[in-house]
Amino acid sequence: MTDHPLPSWRNGPARTAILDFVARVTAENGPDHVPQPERIAVFDNDGTLWCEQPYQVQVFFLTDRVRELAAKDPALAARQPFKAFLEGDHATLHALGKQGIQELFFATHAGMTEDEFAVLARDWLARAKHPKLGRTFPQLTYQPQLELLDFLRANGFKIFVASGGGMDLIRAFSEDTYGIPPEQIIGSSMKLRFEAGDAGVSIVKLGELNSFDDREEKVVNIGLHIGRRPIFCFGNSDGDLAMLRYTLAGKGARLGLLLHHDDAEREFAYDRDFPLSPLVEALEKADAYGITVVSMQNAWSTVFPDAAAP
Amino acid sequence: MTDHPLPSWRNGPARTAILDFVARVTAENGPDHVPQPERIAVFDNDGTLWCEQPYQVQVFFLTDRVRELAAKDPALAARQPFKAFLEGDHATLHALGKQGIQELFFATHAGMTEDEFAVLARDWLARAKHPKLGRTFPQLTYQPQLELLDFLRANGFKIFVASGGGMDLIRAFSEDTYGIPPEQIIGSSMKLRFEAGDAGVSIVKLGELNSFDDREEKVVNIGLHIGRRPIFCFGNSDGDLAMLRYTLAGKGARLGLLLHHDDAEREFAYDRDFPLSPLVEALEKADAYGITVVSMQNAWSTVFPDAAAP
Repeated sequence: MTDHPLPSWRNGPARTAILDFVARVTAENGPDHVPQPERIAVFDNDGTLWCEQPYQVQVFFLTDRVRELAAKDPALAARQPFKAFLEGDHATLHALGKQGIQELFFATHAGMTEDEFAVLARDWLARAKHPKLGRTFPQLTYQPQLELLDFLRANGFKIFVASGGGMDLIRAFSEDTYGIPPEQIIGSSMKLRFEAGDAGVSIVKLGELNSFDDREEKVVNIGLHIGRRPIFCFGNSDGDLAMLRYTLAGKGARLGLLLHHDDAEREFAYDRDFPLSPLVEALEKADAYGITVVSMQNAWSTVFPDAAAP
Repeated sequence: MTDHPLPSWRNGPARTAILDFVARVTAENGPDHVPQPERIAVFDNDGTLWCEQPYQVQVFFLTDRVRELAAKDPALAARQPFKAFLEGDHATLHALGKQGIQELFFATHAGMTEDEFAVLARDWLARAKHPKLGRTFPQLTYQPQLELLDFLRANGFKIFVASGGGMDLIRAFSEDTYGIPPEQIIGSSMKLRFEAGDAGVSIVKLGELNSFDDREEKVVNIGLHIGRRPIFCFGNSDGDLAMLRYTLAGKGARLGLLLHHDDAEREFAYDRDFPLSPLVEALEKADAYGITVVSMQNAWSTVFPDAAAP
C-alpha cells in the first residue's frame, strides 16, 4: 500500500468509499475483517475498465475481421449478413435479426483453434486504433481503474473480469494491460471442441454460442468459475446490476460501484441513450441497493494513461 | 523449496521426472524456462488426489443424501429410482439407465442454493467415514500428492483440479485440504440460475446437467476456465487421457503423469477392472504419448497422511 494510493482518483465520496472499504476488510482484528482468500473482486470490462464508445471494442474487432475475410473471399462479401454489414445497411441487418448478428460473430470468432484466435487477437490489439481517440484499444483503459486494480491486489484481493464481451478477446490482452491472468477472465464464449489429429492436439472454437455473459448470466458464470460470492463489484450498466446485487447481498462488508459516464469533455457522456448497453435501472435503484455511483467527471482527475504508456 | 521436497516419494523414475521437470522450468536462464504465470498444473481428483475405491466419494455422498431424503419423505423412498437404489436392486437401476442415475443426482445435488449445498457438503465431509478405511474422506487424500501440491506451489505453479466429480462437492473441502481455492476447481456441474427475492439474492442449483467433466470435456473446460494450456498434468484413468495429451502436445517442457493403483496392500489394486473409471488406453499408450506412469507401490513410501492429521 503506497502513501498515495489512487492518485488519479479525486478526493470525494467514491475514493473515500473505496479506501474505507479496503481498510475495513484488511484490518486484522477489526469487525469487518475478511480473510485474504475471500477477497474476491469482480469488474465489468466494457465501459468499466476501458472505453466502449461509440461501440464496444469487440464490434471494432468484428468489423475489421469481416473486412479481412471479405477481402480474401469476395463470395462472402456478396452474401448476407456480410453484405449488409459491409455496406452499413442497418435496415437489412435489423431485418436479419439475432441470427444475422450471430453469423457475423461465428464467422469472425470461430472455426479456428484457441491458439490461432489468440494470435489473431493479439495482432489486432497491437495495431487497431480507436477512430476518434487515435490510440490502440489497450491504451484506452482507464488510468484510475489501473490504479484501483493495483491497490486491490496490494491489499490481497484476487480480481476477476465478468464481461459481456468475448472471453478470448479479453484474455489476449488482460495480463499485459490489467495484470489479470486469463484464468480470471469470465465472459461470453463459444462452444469448444477437443481435437486431436495430424494437425496437433488443440481446442477448436465452434460456431455456436456457449454463454452470453450478461445480466443474470454474469452471476451464473461467477458461480461456475469462481464458486464464491465476491465482496467487491464494479460495473457501469444495467448488464452489471445482477452481479452488483449478488455481491451486495452477502454477509459482512461489501462494496458495489457503478461508473456513470458523464464526461463528454474527456471521454463520453451517456447512459440510457446507449442502446448496446444502457444504464437506466441500475442508476435509478442504486440507492435502494446500496450501490455507490461514481461520476467520471467528479471522481477522476485523469481518464486515460499518458499517451506514451504502452 | 525445502532441502527434501517430496519426502513421501521414493527415489525412482517418477520422483526424478518431477524434480527434473520443475528444475528445468524454473531455471531462470535455462532453455526450458517457463514464466511463472504460465506454470499451470492440472490434477484429476478421484483416484489421483484422494481414494476412489470401492467407488467415488461422490457416490458415498449421494447414498447418504438419498437415505436422508427417504427418511424425511417415505413417498420418495417408495418411488423409482430411489427404491431400487435404497434396496441395492442393481437390475432395476440398470434398467432405469442414465435417466435414473441423473434423477438421483438431481434430487440430492440440486433444488437448493449454492450456499445451502456448501453447508450440506461441508457437514457431510466432516463426519462421513470410509466404510473400510475408517477415516473421513478428506483424510483419504494421498500424502505424496499433498507434498507435490506444496512443492509445485513453492515453485510458482498455479494448480487446478479438473474432475469428473461434482465441482461443488470438491469446492467444499479443497481449500482446507489441498490448499486449492474454489475458483481453481473445475468439475462436473449443474445448470445454475440467479434468483433475487424475499429469500435473498442467490444462485440456485437446477436439476439439469451443465457439464459432465470427463475425457474430451475436461479439455474443453480447461479452455473455458483457464484459457491456456497446462504444462503439468496428473491423472489416473482413461478419463484423463485427453487432458494429458493436450498438456503434452504444447511447446516447451511438459510433464504428464499417470498414477497406477497397483498397491492392494496399502490402498487398492485396479485398472481395467474398475467400471466407473477404467484405466486401459492411457496405460497402453503412455509410452507413445510420453506419459510417465507412477506405480503407487514403487513410487510412494507413504500413501495416507498420519491418521491424526485433520
